[in-house]
Amino acid sequence: MSTGRAEAFSDGVFAIAITLLVLSLKLSGTGSVKDQLLAAWPQYLAYVVSFLTIGIMWMNHHTILANVQRVDRPLLVINLLLLMGVVVIPFPTILVAQHLTDQGATAAVVTYGLVMIAISLGFAGLWIYVVTRGPALGATLPPEALRQSIPGFTGGLIAYVLATLIAFFPPPGPSAAVIIFGLLAVYYLFEHLPSPADDGLRPGDVGTGP
Amino acid sequence: MSTGRAEAFSDGVFAIAITLLVLSLKLSGTGSVKDQLLAAWPQYLAYVVSFLTIGIMWMNHHTILANVQRVDRPLLVINLLLLMGVVVIPFPTILVAQHLTDQGATAAVVTYGLVMIAISLGFAGLWIYVVTRGPALGATLPPEALRQSIPGFTGGLIAYVLATLIAFFPPPGPSAAVIIFGLLAVYYLFEHLPSPADDGLRPGDVGTGP
Amino acid sequence: MSTGRAEAFSDGVFAIAITLLVLSLKLSGTGSVKDQLLAAWPQYLAYVVSFLTIGIMWMNHHTILANVQRVDRPLLVINLLLLMGVVVIPFPTILVAQHLTDQGATAAVVTYGLVMIAISLGFAGLWIYVVTRGPALGATLPPEALRQSIPGFTGGLIAYVLATLIAFFPPPGPSAAVIIFGLLAVYYLFEHLPSPADDGLRPGDVGTGP
Amino acid sequence: MSTGRAEAFSDGVFAIAITLLVLSLKLSGTGSVKDQLLAAWPQYLAYVVSFLTIGIMWMNHHTILANVQRVDRPLLVINLLLLMGVVVIPFPTILVAQHLTDQGATAAVVTYGLVMIAISLGFAGLWIYVVTRGPALGATLPPEALRQSIPGFTGGLIAYVLATLIAFFPPPGPSAAVIIFGLLAVYYLFEHLPSPADDGLRPGDVGTGP
Repeated sequence: MSTGRAEAFSDGVFAIAITLLVLSLKLSGTGSVKDQLLAAWPQYLAYVVSFLTIGIMWMNHHTILANVQRVDRPLLVINLLLLMGVVVIPFPTILVAQHLTDQGATAAVVTYGLVMIAISLGFAGLWIYVVTRGPALGATLPPEALRQSIPGFTGGLIAYVLATLIAFFPPPGPSAAVIIFGLLAVYYLFEHLPSPADDGLRPGDVGTGP
Repeated sequence: MSTGRAEAFSDGVFAIAITLLVLSLKLSGTGSVKDQLLAAWPQYLAYVVSFLTIGIMWMNHHTILANVQRVDRPLLVINLLLLMGVVVIPFPTILVAQHLTDQGATAAVVTYGLVMIAISLGFAGLWIYVVTRGPALGATLPPEALRQSIPGFTGGLIAYVLATLIAFFPPPGPSAAVIIFGLLAVYYLFEHLPSPADDGLRPGDVGTGP
Repeated sequence: MSTGRAEAFSDGVFAIAITLLVLSLKLSGTGSVKDQLLAAWPQYLAYVVSFLTIGIMWMNHHTILANVQRVDRPLLVINLLLLMGVVVIPFPTILVAQHLTDQGATAAVVTYGLVMIAISLGFAGLWIYVVTRGPALGATLPPEALRQSIPGFTGGLIAYVLATLIAFFPPPGPSAAVIIFGLLAVYYLFEHLPSPADDGLRPGDVGTGP
Repeated sequence: MSTGRAEAFSDGVFAIAITLLVLSLKLSGTGSVKDQLLAAWPQYLAYVVSFLTIGIMWMNHHTILANVQRVDRPLLVINLLLLMGVVVIPFPTILVAQHLTDQGATAAVVTYGLVMIAISLGFAGLWIYVVTRGPALGATLPPEALRQSIPGFTGGLIAYVLATLIAFFPPPGPSAAVIIFGLLAVYYLFEHLPSPADDGLRPGDVGTGP
């Protein structure tokens, strides 16, 4: 299968999962609409963190697949397991949105963290597979260049574990963990993987073609 | 990354967000189905206004990206922030659909207006970035031509602010604001940005190619 | 804009609207799961009719756009209005699924019929525009050939009006109307528009290329 | 119609159906969030089984269509009927997620099994049509090669029937049936159809092109 079709399906899943996050925004309770809107700040926080997370996962997913020219069956299976985690994200997002300020905060944020850890493992697996199988999949970078980026990329995994542990502390532990999840999304925004498609696209440079 | 992939992901998000608007149509309350259907007119109004708004945002989003041949990381981030606003639209749409005729009308419509203002800022940011970085991104129009369109494009932003202020007036203030949101969508339909792809496609002309 | 992008966005909307139909399947009430499943037959009927309807609308939408090589702004607006009807379909589908066997059957089915009539008008408008503006949009068939198909295509509109009127009769009037909606979907399946892409693809023929 | 467009629409439907599975994850009941999360294991099981099933159906759907160069009207109709089953999957998934541990387990799992049987019939129909009409659709493999794979492919159908019958046994009959559904997804992962696009993409081989 060409990379294009696997990417198109993955893009669709990312786009739908990111759009379903709006379902985590839902007023419930009593009082005026204004009061309910103001009290719903955990929903906005959870929405923003999850939106940035999925959005940046999408960018890095593209960067990974941009290194290969075709995909094989094992890569499709790893990709499917990865997407199984991405699709779940709206579920812990709703949990966090609803329980960040009540007794269930730790359980909600830990669930969120476990999903993120699972997805990080999926990304690590996808990337390691691409590095290992690079030449057979038509990778255009030398294996060494790819291998060098493993520490930086999988390093985020440890950060997700630590943030999840912080959620076990009493308030504002869970809220702090959610903010760290948001910062991790921003981290992955800047610390990204090598991509042939990114050559010449850094600010100040002129690209050589699409 | 080529413009194509960024567009495909954005198109997916626009298409899903516009389709999720149907979730704002939901009968609730008492009385016969016919009475409930007739009483649900704020839902239909909110649906139509939001549908036209997202649909025309999609067209203008395409027009903006049609000016560049590739996208860089900062543009992707601006685009992601813009989409974060677009995806939210079903939330204030449901608010307006449910509260346009009760005490919460002002709060609901102001929320709607704030989302529109945020999206307008995102569009302005995207457009200004394309204008500023045009040559490096392979823009095919001279920067001057692009720059001239900034006033007309960002002018809508001020209109959104004014309409939001109108929602603070007592009824029919909120309803009037919603109608203005609808008219703004129609405004953007006709007052659009320059696009190389639109050359020769105006009524009466014969296009030169796809 | 090339036809490809308008089709991709439209395809996305059709695909999402058809998939959201699953939301019309929802057990509610009392009794065992088995009894609820058996009592939910109006949901299955509504699902099948709406699924076939949207699916065949998608095919015919493709056939229409296959006749032109590019799209202009007015065509995009007509297309957007058409999609505004398609996206709504899950709403009357849920109404019919919930009320086909109670007092609200007529109101539910009439709502369904009105949406179908609106969509038929949208399709007629799209087709008439393509016929009228054919040469400027790069239509590959002579205008006469296109024009001949208007009666057959818009004839379904009258059938939708008649079926909607039948829903005003006492039971089984509403159920009969829903079955007619289903038969109309099958009708559009066989009585389709001319398409350059369909040449040579009829059973027994060998196609000349993709 | 070219295979590409039929695939793009089908891919969209698969991607949305797989993403809507997250709606089967929803806490309800009483007790702490932690207790609710632990008690929700049938939801996780149902989610994983359905996710793998749809994901692998997507892969095999691609493999089938990769054998033809274009599609005709009958193939589109068979494909639409197949998708009508795929889109339904979230409905029995939610049923199983909610009732696997109560009195409705058998009814829920049998519903799930019936949907799977219907989809299997759809896949068998699609594949048989492709085999029979292969040359006219530009199939690149000899008809004999395609025909040989019918037994293995449709064999899963019998397995689905058997698993559905097991759901009639008292507990843990229904749970066992769900696990068999999961194993069948894994079976289809390895036992796949011949595809021209897969040539040279097995582990250890070097592909010849995208």
